[in-house]
Amino acid sequence: MSRPPGRKQDSHKISRELFVLTYGALVAQLCKDYEKDEDVNSCLDKMGYGIGIRLIDDFLAHSDVKRCRSYSETADMIAQVAFKMYLGVTPSVSCSSAAGNEFSLILDKNPLVDFVEELPVERASLCYCNLLCGVIRGALEMVHLAAEVTFLQDRLKGDAVTEIGITFLRKAEDKKAKKK
Amino acid sequence: MSRPPGRKQDSHKISRELFVLTYGALVAQLCKDYEKDEDVNSCLDKMGYGIGIRLIDDFLAHSDVKRCRSYSETADMIAQVAFKMYLGVTPSVSCSSAAGNEFSLILDKNPLVDFVEELPVERASLCYCNLLCGVIRGALEMVHLAAEVTFLQDRLKGDAVTEIGITFLRKAEDKKAKKK
Repeated sequence: MSRPPGRKQDSHKISRELFVLTYGALVAQLCKDYEKDEDVNSCLDKMGYGIGIRLIDDFLAHSDVKRCRSYSETADMIAQVAFKMYLGVTPSVSCSSAAGNEFSLILDKNPLVDFVEELPVERASLCYCNLLCGVIRGALEMVHLAAEVTFLQDRLKGDAVTEIGITFLRKAEDKKAKKK
Repeated sequence: MSRPPGRKQDSHKISRELFVLTYGALVAQLCKDYEKDEDVNSCLDKMGYGIGIRLIDDFLAHSDVKRCRSYSETADMIAQVAFKMYLGVTPSVSCSSAAGNEFSLILDKNPLVDFVEELPVERASLCYCNLLCGVIRGALEMVHLAAEVTFLQDRLKGDAVTEIGITFLRKAEDKKAKKK
């Protein structure tokens, strides 16, 4: 059955508040499970990775995007299409290295922390939204782009903005070619 | 700043797949944490309750709904407005008691299990979506309606449909009045 153009995503659209609160419950559970912030962060990243490698199919199926020809295009795609689709916000993108492989996604407003006032004192090293880094890393890997993704700034920790850093590493297929 | 009517929710809309996968990660984590399905179910219900008592404010702010005058209207509101808003689906509603206080929400398709094939054999008693029961219970309590909410049927367990049962108990304010 064909759908009218431009309405592809309509049946998938939901309000994000239930998601944001459910994410909060997930982080709270991990904070119960792990004493060290580093372990919570690492667990969120791992979970996100598992989500990213599955989410990419949905993204490609629903976003109508073409193959990106540069790291810069890829970073723009993540910010303008993927963030918009799954979080309802569009971070600004800046390139932060002369080599052209390091990018920052800058969020003035991070919807995932809508219901979070501040991190508890004993959780000062928690990267509350670390799941997102894993999701981006996992999704990129599925399109043969290896990347390191980390939070560089976080409004929850008192920074002026929330900034996610993406460093593209050499392509996974290059590695494979080398092994052969 | 006023928003044009009918566009109230637009800025909150997201694709639901990231939510569905994140929910899956939450359930998987609880299955790691608790050996017994009953404990996972109870934890999901508790988490949902905590979410429901916060989500109700968002629901009332964004749904433009009027006060319900009967249990039947309330059940319809949950199915047609709340489920649509937060999960992108509209269950059908049926009243299942002569007393008019028991309702079933029947989901032909449950988006929360989109990425779940079947429950593992050792998790046969898991109510995978039990968070939803807690959310409904918590949200109803905040509008002074006490209710029991449980899964009556679940396609994940081989049933033909997924059915959530809501039994409205006497109103919380009646209880308070009695205490006085």
